[in-house]
Amino acid sequence: MRYSKLFGKTTFGEQQGGSRLISHQLLIKGGFIRESVAGRYYFLPLGWRVHEKIRAIIKDEMDKAGAQEMITPTLHPLELWQETNRAESAGYELMTVTDRRGAAFALGGTAEEMMVDVVRKFQLSYRDLPFNIYQFSTKFRDELRARGGLLRMREFVMKDAYSFHRDAEDFKAEYQRMAQAYHAIFRRMGLDALEVEADNGYFGGEYCHEFVVEHEMGESRFLVTEDGAYAAHEDVATFQRELINPNDELKPFQIIEQPEWVKTMDDNEKHYSLPRAYYLKNVVYRHVVTGDIIIAGIRGDLDVNKAKLEHAIDAVGLLEEATDDDLARIGTQRGWVHSWGHEGARYIGDYSLTTVRNFIGGQKELTTDSVNVNYGRDFTCEMLADIAMAQPDHLSADGQQRLIEKRGIEVGNIFQLGYHYSTKMAGAVFTDQDSQDKPLYMGCYGIGLGRTLATVVEVYHDERGVIWPPSIAPFHVHLISLRGGEEQAADLYAKLQADGYEVLWDERDESPGIKFADADLVGIPVRLVVSKRTGENVEWKRRDGTEVETLSRQEVWRRLVEIYSGL
Amino acid sequence: MRYSKLFGKTTFGEQQGGSRLISHQLLIKGGFIRESVAGRYYFLPLGWRVHEKIRAIIKDEMDKAGAQEMITPTLHPLELWQETNRAESAGYELMTVTDRRGAAFALGGTAEEMMVDVVRKFQLSYRDLPFNIYQFSTKFRDELRARGGLLRMREFVMKDAYSFHRDAEDFKAEYQRMAQAYHAIFRRMGLDALEVEADNGYFGGEYCHEFVVEHEMGESRFLVTEDGAYAAHEDVATFQRELINPNDELKPFQIIEQPEWVKTMDDNEKHYSLPRAYYLKNVVYRHVVTGDIIIAGIRGDLDVNKAKLEHAIDAVGLLEEATDDDLARIGTQRGWVHSWGHEGARYIGDYSLTTVRNFIGGQKELTTDSVNVNYGRDFTCEMLADIAMAQPDHLSADGQQRLIEKRGIEVGNIFQLGYHYSTKMAGAVFTDQDSQDKPLYMGCYGIGLGRTLATVVEVYHDERGVIWPPSIAPFHVHLISLRGGEEQAADLYAKLQADGYEVLWDERDESPGIKFADADLVGIPVRLVVSKRTGENVEWKRRDGTEVETLSRQEVWRRLVEIYSGL
Repeated sequence: MRYSKLFGKTTFGEQQGGSRLISHQLLIKGGFIRESVAGRYYFLPLGWRVHEKIRAIIKDEMDKAGAQEMITPTLHPLELWQETNRAESAGYELMTVTDRRGAAFALGGTAEEMMVDVVRKFQLSYRDLPFNIYQFSTKFRDELRARGGLLRMREFVMKDAYSFHRDAEDFKAEYQRMAQAYHAIFRRMGLDALEVEADNGYFGGEYCHEFVVEHEMGESRFLVTEDGAYAAHEDVATFQRELINPNDELKPFQIIEQPEWVKTMDDNEKHYSLPRAYYLKNVVYRHVVTGDIIIAGIRGDLDVNKAKLEHAIDAVGLLEEATDDDLARIGTQRGWVHSWGHEGARYIGDYSLTTVRNFIGGQKELTTDSVNVNYGRDFTCEMLADIAMAQPDHLSADGQQRLIEKRGIEVGNIFQLGYHYSTKMAGAVFTDQDSQDKPLYMGCYGIGLGRTLATVVEVYHDERGVIWPPSIAPFHVHLISLRGGEEQAADLYAKLQADGYEVLWDERDESPGIKFADADLVGIPVRLVVSKRTGENVEWKRRDGTEVETLSRQEVWRRLVEIYSGL
Repeated sequence: MRYSKLFGKTTFGEQQGGSRLISHQLLIKGGFIRESVAGRYYFLPLGWRVHEKIRAIIKDEMDKAGAQEMITPTLHPLELWQETNRAESAGYELMTVTDRRGAAFALGGTAEEMMVDVVRKFQLSYRDLPFNIYQFSTKFRDELRARGGLLRMREFVMKDAYSFHRDAEDFKAEYQRMAQAYHAIFRRMGLDALEVEADNGYFGGEYCHEFVVEHEMGESRFLVTEDGAYAAHEDVATFQRELINPNDELKPFQIIEQPEWVKTMDDNEKHYSLPRAYYLKNVVYRHVVTGDIIIAGIRGDLDVNKAKLEHAIDAVGLLEEATDDDLARIGTQRGWVHSWGHEGARYIGDYSLTTVRNFIGGQKELTTDSVNVNYGRDFTCEMLADIAMAQPDHLSADGQQRLIEKRGIEVGNIFQLGYHYSTKMAGAVFTDQDSQDKPLYMGCYGIGLGRTLATVVEVYHDERGVIWPPSIAPFHVHLISLRGGEEQAADLYAKLQADGYEVLWDERDESPGIKFADADLVGIPVRLVVSKRTGENVEWKRRDGTEVETLSRQEVWRRLVEIYSGL
């Protein structure tokens, strides 16, 4: 490709709207992408080359793992989403459109319903199972805010795969196979993606992992052990609750006087001179469907993890923080919620309630407080469960290491769906060996391509531009001809291309300074310069290095093979 | 791929809804596609493999011709379509959707506005031109009827390319290059596509061609000369109007008595004993914007070509057949329209009005008729133009050959856009050498992938199934193992794949009859059978032949190379 005729050249100058993310800025300036309207992007020829190399890597590994590519229509008949109740629960992020005959469609963010629908059109037997079908298709999310460049788009290409199995056992094997494929995929594009346990949302079950690339701007917060063997999203991370004062004697429950100024946790610490762990803490929620008031009791130094609480009481996505009105309904107000005794409230306790002897609090009035409160003896909850947020420095669940907090960008996920869709959608069955129709057991597996591309740029860049990994670089060689090097460049251009190398040739009548700056911004792994000065030789520079060397053509070829063979 | 685990197997049995087209039936039965709702299709793994091979061929030829692949968002901001007035003129076939912030989008059927919009975001100079940018993207058409299988879909992948030029001269060269690329593309998939002149719609100009594959079910009717050098869609086909009676003497104009029963053209022929060419014929239209009544005058043996008429008076897409009310407005009724004298009507004549001496008709009343009517002497029109429909047996425009009528399926088109979009959309300019900003000159070039795929099946099939051309076959080899051939098949399967062949291995426990029928239906070019009987050898059969041969492996390999190398 001659750079002069490339559509989408570099743009230096002011910051480009939409996002302050460095990947966004570099991709716009380098001529890889352009914004259409917020959250919707053109991929220019340069950016599309990278996108399509990412697609090819994903396809290669998916196919090697036995998955089969296909495609579903972009417009999903809305009645399918109604079958699974997702037309409502996916809520505002789902766009819908009606055709002129009145048929309604969803612009889907995922395609579970579509895939189940096509699968149930066939009379499947156990002999046809398992299979894993996937597509690369445009997905839509009607995000209110979309300021994350390619990290949070309203429209993007996603690889979404759906596997169908006879039972959970068979699914587990596929889940492992997909996890391996994902590691291979991200490794091939230079990303070190951690497999992080994540929340399975409505589906419960044990199998759900995010593939996360560590990054300070990432939206995923997760916790890992020092050795990395355990990694879990904050929503699900578990930890060991240490006993705070196991050797203290149990003292008799007492209601004592307490000055009126003691209201907050800080006040307590000042007044009692004991650390936060010694106080009882309560957080109140309302179930949006049943209206139940839930009081979550926890040790004072811990925070309630709403996602865990929702799973504990089977109310995923259904809890909201209680309002003042809600508190009034159970006869109390903010700061004075009791650990027992509010009529009509459901008490759910964290396991940490059993780790302190002689808690302070639990039934606090204006000028009194309860002390020496012990779980089991003085109060109990409807259930004890893991409803606490893991924090850095907590002990890992096995008690062997401390947890470390990290942030990262989620580039993919793998997901156990189980029977969720196949039981909601009539006819999603197979005929088993015993001639009985049984529901299909499912998993799903997603990778966002634009997001992955942006993540690579977040990881691989410097102040001058992108530094593409060779496997997904838009071109293999950035050839620059300076005055007197035109003929030699034309010859190199032809010979490199004849040998299968993708060459971007900057043959413009521009200064060396402009051409070098553009090459740095565009970030192709190898820069070759020919000029009057280089004669038969070629100036070689790698984008990820600083050394400029003058090499024979033979040596240039040798090094190119070294970099690009096997990619 | 093991056939037992392929998702989307063959389905014999009843006709599948949606279309009676043989391609539709075979693609559904063979497990290539499935309907979601009318006009929207799943491409199953087998069908998607073919689709993607078609995509690869198109991409290869487009890239070789210097075009650059990119992508636009699927949702087009509606204000762009308003800039070019297409939000209305594209009418009902345009679907729109509004997001929750109130922004409106079109689900586009083509992407001119989007491409111009991204191009105008750059400060282009004449040095950046020309370029040709294209995408493979899903297109939407809100068709009222969609019963044509893959030939008329509501949603389909289209390759749409848009070229940008300094001037018409430069565009012409690209137009030729694209025509060559299209011929190469269709040839590579076994299609003999004719380049047929077509109507350029709103844009006028000389350059617009459909690529049409001859087929009796095709929607395109076109005319060709016997030698094939001239081919034009019925909307634009020209022909030479032969002089009917050049040696007749001009006779004086007369109004004569005529029996009341003479009303239709047939009645005229009976009454006057002269062929149709001798009578004047008028067809009346109304301009939907101005309300003008247009009377198109033509020789009695010819029909008015509405598309040509619209071009002649610069009213493309704006003429409708006159209603009884319209006729009443100019003081007449159906069957009694005069060739002159209706107040307020515009008379447009076909050139054929000058090819007959002493026309009959022109001013017909209940019991009178005019005879010996001669154009120029007795009546004239506002203009004479080519507004006649060419018919088989007409002389070609150069008078050298007769025209032949054909029907076909349009698989692609190339199109001169000129300044149409760049003048309607502000800022679609480049800076010329003289430092002046000038509008971009454009062309566009489309190919529908699903439609092309279906056309291949229409051309290549027999009563048992599809016969894929090797270049786009879903697999290279259909391997069938019969009892006793399992081990040998496993070995062949591994070795063929190691050598880069794509193999579909039917290893199911089914009868030879079922496996052979499936192989015929699926249509992979080469069928290999191994069984106890074949021993070290392999049974070879080509899908496009009948001979079954037992060959050594060496010979199998030699023949595979012959078929598949260079594809």
